[in-house]
Amino acid sequence: MSDGSKTQSGEERLIERLFRPIARHPGALGLRDDAALLSPPPGHDLVLTVDAIVAGVHFFSEDPPDTVARKALRVNLSDLAAKGSEPLGALLTLSIPVSTDEKWLEAFARGLGADCEHFRCPLLGGDLTRTAGPLTISVTAIGAVPAGKMVQRKGAKAGDAIVVTGSIGDAALGLMLRREPKRAALDRLPGTAKAHLADRYLLPQPRIALARALSEHASAAIDVSDGLAGDLAKIASVSGVRARFEAKQIPFSPGVRGAIGAEPGLLETALTGGDDYEIAATVSENHLKPLQAAAAEAGIDVTTIGRIEAGEGIEAIGLDGRPLTLRQASFSHF
Amino acid sequence: MSDGSKTQSGEERLIERLFRPIARHPGALGLRDDAALLSPPPGHDLVLTVDAIVAGVHFFSEDPPDTVARKALRVNLSDLAAKGSEPLGALLTLSIPVSTDEKWLEAFARGLGADCEHFRCPLLGGDLTRTAGPLTISVTAIGAVPAGKMVQRKGAKAGDAIVVTGSIGDAALGLMLRREPKRAALDRLPGTAKAHLADRYLLPQPRIALARALSEHASAAIDVSDGLAGDLAKIASVSGVRARFEAKQIPFSPGVRGAIGAEPGLLETALTGGDDYEIAATVSENHLKPLQAAAAEAGIDVTTIGRIEAGEGIEAIGLDGRPLTLRQASFSHF
Repeated sequence: MSDGSKTQSGEERLIERLFRPIARHPGALGLRDDAALLSPPPGHDLVLTVDAIVAGVHFFSEDPPDTVARKALRVNLSDLAAKGSEPLGALLTLSIPVSTDEKWLEAFARGLGADCEHFRCPLLGGDLTRTAGPLTISVTAIGAVPAGKMVQRKGAKAGDAIVVTGSIGDAALGLMLRREPKRAALDRLPGTAKAHLADRYLLPQPRIALARALSEHASAAIDVSDGLAGDLAKIASVSGVRARFEAKQIPFSPGVRGAIGAEPGLLETALTGGDDYEIAATVSENHLKPLQAAAAEAGIDVTTIGRIEAGEGIEAIGLDGRPLTLRQASFSHF
Repeated sequence: MSDGSKTQSGEERLIERLFRPIARHPGALGLRDDAALLSPPPGHDLVLTVDAIVAGVHFFSEDPPDTVARKALRVNLSDLAAKGSEPLGALLTLSIPVSTDEKWLEAFARGLGADCEHFRCPLLGGDLTRTAGPLTISVTAIGAVPAGKMVQRKGAKAGDAIVVTGSIGDAALGLMLRREPKRAALDRLPGTAKAHLADRYLLPQPRIALARALSEHASAAIDVSDGLAGDLAKIASVSGVRARFEAKQIPFSPGVRGAIGAEPGLLETALTGGDDYEIAATVSENHLKPLQAAAAEAGIDVTTIGRIEAGEGIEAIGLDGRPLTLRQASFSHF
């Protein structure tokens, strides 16, 4: 048995063919070891996050494999960005049903590799397993932030402005568009608006370019993954404050604005649906301008939508200027 | 909606009730944030590993939930140990079928908490998701090793001794005992031997206590998770050498010895079956005694089973002194 190739399992063959080519960072050790090696940058803390996405729960089985891979990585990069950290690398766990063919996995690996490069987040290691269930992808992302500067959910103070990046509600309506394409409020939107919503559901845009500025200027932050209202409630809860925000200040894309215009109840969907992957942060008076300047330089819109007050919970003001009652502040699969 | 409790999802409730009590490390931020915070020890490299276990593939659905949790953590601690590193913390992804009741999850969390404490590997964060498939547990473990001292698979040199910790083949025969309890060679074993084999399959013993000594004395190492023969072949392959080992030198427990005595073909099962979670290392002449002394102090058996030679692949010598031909060097689910 001196022929090394005879000892190679199907798992090793897949790793060698699909994942080794996209894991070129020296710490990945060519994916030929039990573990990866990472020399943390001196003077920094590490930020660690893990999120899994499951076929049929977090994405559609028929989604393009490269976007599935990108989404799995990006939802984690979004967490790193919200904490003010920049990526050092990622680990992948892929649980593969027998029905998943190698072509699918090839495209998946290609998409992952492209994003790892784009976001400078090298693939360092992982694990492939078989499953009798749906395809499941778990990504662990490791980031670095200057020591003591991680932005937590805790830290919001009365008087702080509440800001959000990008636009809110696109992904929730993009998901609705997948499920109910004939719903009048959506069906009547222009094609470009529909495409924008669909794309925003499919492919989050992690705000890594704003991470450093957040670590310098935000008092608290969260990535908006479970709905703006619920995610602000989380900041309010751990910070011991109240978050008050106004719907009319929230940045909505033309598609979301049009859909709400046609069906006012969709405002609630936009405020409580998941998958925005924007960042909601609280910022004290004197840090607001520097944060906005950094955001402008990074080409990211940052909009003030409300203010932190003494108290607890959230207060959402509707488009009519009256307090909104939301049935459920955030989306949950449980 | 000023009542914070209304905004809590089922996932948050589970995290709060089951996992927050076992995640007391300050870097876990009470599991109330998007990510964990870790200050890496200065002068150290990080070792990162992730392994998933799937119900029906890596463990039996009817296994006690606390041992399932322990196994999920321990298979990763075993990787850290083999690389010469000591644990800093772990992240958990749990994909839960609707059929898994909260009692099961309670016992799971209890087992995990006990092991996190025992191995000083704090739970730092994680993610809970629903799945239509089998229960899947993915653990990412982060370890630290003095800078430049990670033990890789690469590094074995001609003349090095090959050593293994503990005993080999117990878990493979323990698994066989679960599947074929009436197989004559196993059925005739004394009850204590059977219990030992079953336990070794259920609950690996990661050799964390030997990690530091390995980082000082081993030229290469791997944790024996896919079968001794195949795992030595991996060291041989990346190190560009041949691994020659003799079955009669391999430490077998009384159960394995008895089973092989009754059915000689089970030698191959012991050498190529998975789940030992012992460590196979290569050690140069002058490092062998110090490693053995450290192992003795840690209460871990270390046995020399062969030698690294120029060449490639592995050469296994059978109990009769003649070269063994193994059908498959290691176990793979693919």
